[in-house]
Amino acid sequence: MTTWNKRYAKRMDGVNSSIIRELLKLTQIPGIISFAGGLPAPEIFPTEICAEATVHLMKEQGQQALQYSTTEGYAPLRQFIADKLNKMGANLTVDNVRITSGSQQGLDLIGKIMVDPHDKILVERPSYLGALQAWQAYQADFISVPIDNDGIDVDKLEEALQSKPKFMYILPNFQNPAGVTLSLERRKKIVALSKQYDVPIIEDDPYGELRYEGEDLPPLIALDEDDSVMYLGTFSKTFAPGLRLGWVAGPESVIQKFTMAKQGADLHTSTFTQMLLYEIAKDGFLDEHRQLIRRVYKERRDIMLDSLEKHMPEGVTWTRPFGGLFLWVTLPETMQARDVFDRAIKNKVAFVPGYAFFPESDSGYTGHNSMRLNFSNAAPDKIEIGIERLGRAIRGS
Amino acid sequence: MTTWNKRYAKRMDGVNSSIIRELLKLTQIPGIISFAGGLPAPEIFPTEICAEATVHLMKEQGQQALQYSTTEGYAPLRQFIADKLNKMGANLTVDNVRITSGSQQGLDLIGKIMVDPHDKILVERPSYLGALQAWQAYQADFISVPIDNDGIDVDKLEEALQSKPKFMYILPNFQNPAGVTLSLERRKKIVALSKQYDVPIIEDDPYGELRYEGEDLPPLIALDEDDSVMYLGTFSKTFAPGLRLGWVAGPESVIQKFTMAKQGADLHTSTFTQMLLYEIAKDGFLDEHRQLIRRVYKERRDIMLDSLEKHMPEGVTWTRPFGGLFLWVTLPETMQARDVFDRAIKNKVAFVPGYAFFPESDSGYTGHNSMRLNFSNAAPDKIEIGIERLGRAIRGS
Repeated sequence: MTTWNKRYAKRMDGVNSSIIRELLKLTQIPGIISFAGGLPAPEIFPTEICAEATVHLMKEQGQQALQYSTTEGYAPLRQFIADKLNKMGANLTVDNVRITSGSQQGLDLIGKIMVDPHDKILVERPSYLGALQAWQAYQADFISVPIDNDGIDVDKLEEALQSKPKFMYILPNFQNPAGVTLSLERRKKIVALSKQYDVPIIEDDPYGELRYEGEDLPPLIALDEDDSVMYLGTFSKTFAPGLRLGWVAGPESVIQKFTMAKQGADLHTSTFTQMLLYEIAKDGFLDEHRQLIRRVYKERRDIMLDSLEKHMPEGVTWTRPFGGLFLWVTLPETMQARDVFDRAIKNKVAFVPGYAFFPESDSGYTGHNSMRLNFSNAAPDKIEIGIERLGRAIRGS
Repeated sequence: MTTWNKRYAKRMDGVNSSIIRELLKLTQIPGIISFAGGLPAPEIFPTEICAEATVHLMKEQGQQALQYSTTEGYAPLRQFIADKLNKMGANLTVDNVRITSGSQQGLDLIGKIMVDPHDKILVERPSYLGALQAWQAYQADFISVPIDNDGIDVDKLEEALQSKPKFMYILPNFQNPAGVTLSLERRKKIVALSKQYDVPIIEDDPYGELRYEGEDLPPLIALDEDDSVMYLGTFSKTFAPGLRLGWVAGPESVIQKFTMAKQGADLHTSTFTQMLLYEIAKDGFLDEHRQLIRRVYKERRDIMLDSLEKHMPEGVTWTRPFGGLFLWVTLPETMQARDVFDRAIKNKVAFVPGYAFFPESDSGYTGHNSMRLNFSNAAPDKIEIGIERLGRAIRGS
């Protein structure tokens, strides 16, 4: 037997997706109502337009769509993305934009080009699990700064910047996992701090277009005038995740390094899915479809908030997100979300315990009494039933 | 201006795709006949069946195809791949197979799970550029072993194994770039050496199904009984590269590590393209389509071989591949392929100078007088014209 197990790279020591993967397997049990994943509502996926656009694409540009293409990505789609961000106040050309195989690849490649072992990365507390996992594989150390209802605490951020992290990772809108949104004042402050302390910003904005109330706020990349921001976006939430299409936008010099890393990682993202999405997007379908998504998810969010009001025992609190896919529940200090999880599974309802979103290497904070709930995936009639089951699990039965 | 340039990871020092990228840009000049890329013939891409299958898929399983899916890959497609390899003598289940976003991702993730800085990797000389680039990003050092018409020199391989490389990287069939094929005797010897020296094998087989003469030989994974082989395959050459679908097959323990790395890299490969390919493949279309590809590429190979006979000056030699997409030309020792390249571009014909396929860190060997020619992409009538132009460039005009 060839001995592979003594041959793994050191970076793999920190990579273990096992706990969450095991939890998510439990959520596959038949009859379970799952608030655990981050899945869009499949019943509103635009399957018909995908079929129609593919027929058209194969007829008109089929040979190009099935061939190898450039690492940079399909230029018309990159221009479409630049235009979209410029409408929010950014100042980008096609050369500032690269297509990625989902936003997760953007996170991974930023780790690849930026992170040496034991580099410090500043993250929000709690933060997006996929980013923590991606950067653990490059042996990053994390410094975390707490968030409240207006996003990251900028005073504590300034303190943490003294320790000179390589970059800061900010989720401005309807943050995953907590559902909170960074205020305009804090956005401006973060951009100023980035300049003052010379620490660049990775801005991750998968949900920005899914706002259900209030006014859109400018992304950090639109407030920055100093080439300090790499912005990550995705079509997973505004179209469909099954295509795996995301993007990064940022300073050309960084984008060029990124491109070299991407070339080694997968040569390029599927020509077919890129051209298909552009075919669908170019005449404005996404704007129209976004209205439908917002309507459906707003209804589900409202049902979940109402159900929480009705079924949660005293001492339990939760965030009231203005958009996105998630809200964050905080149990009394003395409770363990992991214990609630076991009872919840017995009751046929699932969530992700909050500790998954706290970096292990920053172990003073464990989020032991918190949980993330997704409200986009379960059908409206299931949401209230699921929250009622969850309430029972929290009460101990 | 935020200073990104002092923030890049050390691993990026070794990553520069610039020379080849610059060369390939030159091959885009209008009117040029390019033997430089590794592109399939787009005129035989199955565009109609893609359109039909998408319509069917969107109607029957559209919601699933557009949703997130597992990191492991679509199970029916993995079973299809296991069956295919088992017909060649392997012994695999669905748990031994993972879908990748093109074979390049397989190479990258093997680097990620296996390679620490300055680990030694044993490669053929010359070897596949994409593998060298992928592993340079993990700061690998390369040891190279020469190949001849029967593939890697097994005596020199045994010598090189004394230095205990982390793994050996073998392209058994119609090797990229040289077009040579590993003999059955040497295949058996390599598997035995792997066991004897406890050095696992990464077997990369993108072209194995594209044989134009002679008998198929078993892959190393079918000869090995010791869990020593990770096998990489792709649908890029037997269907279309624009979908970005490849796979790895190997021991379950390694496959599990690989899955964790893939989760951080891109969550999963496009559900849509995986299900689409399975929809097309499940009733045997790929077997039928392979006959067409073989017929077309065999004709192009034969025309290129005839044209070389006719137009190459004395002292120039070349390989006669039994399959695949490439052949390898060796110029007289005193000539520089880089100089020939400049004259060739003036003559409107392009190729890749051989030095691109020699690892820089193994600098005793430069391949200065060699070149790789692709015969799958240019139309038959262009091939003879292109080789005539190349002959003139070699002669110095």
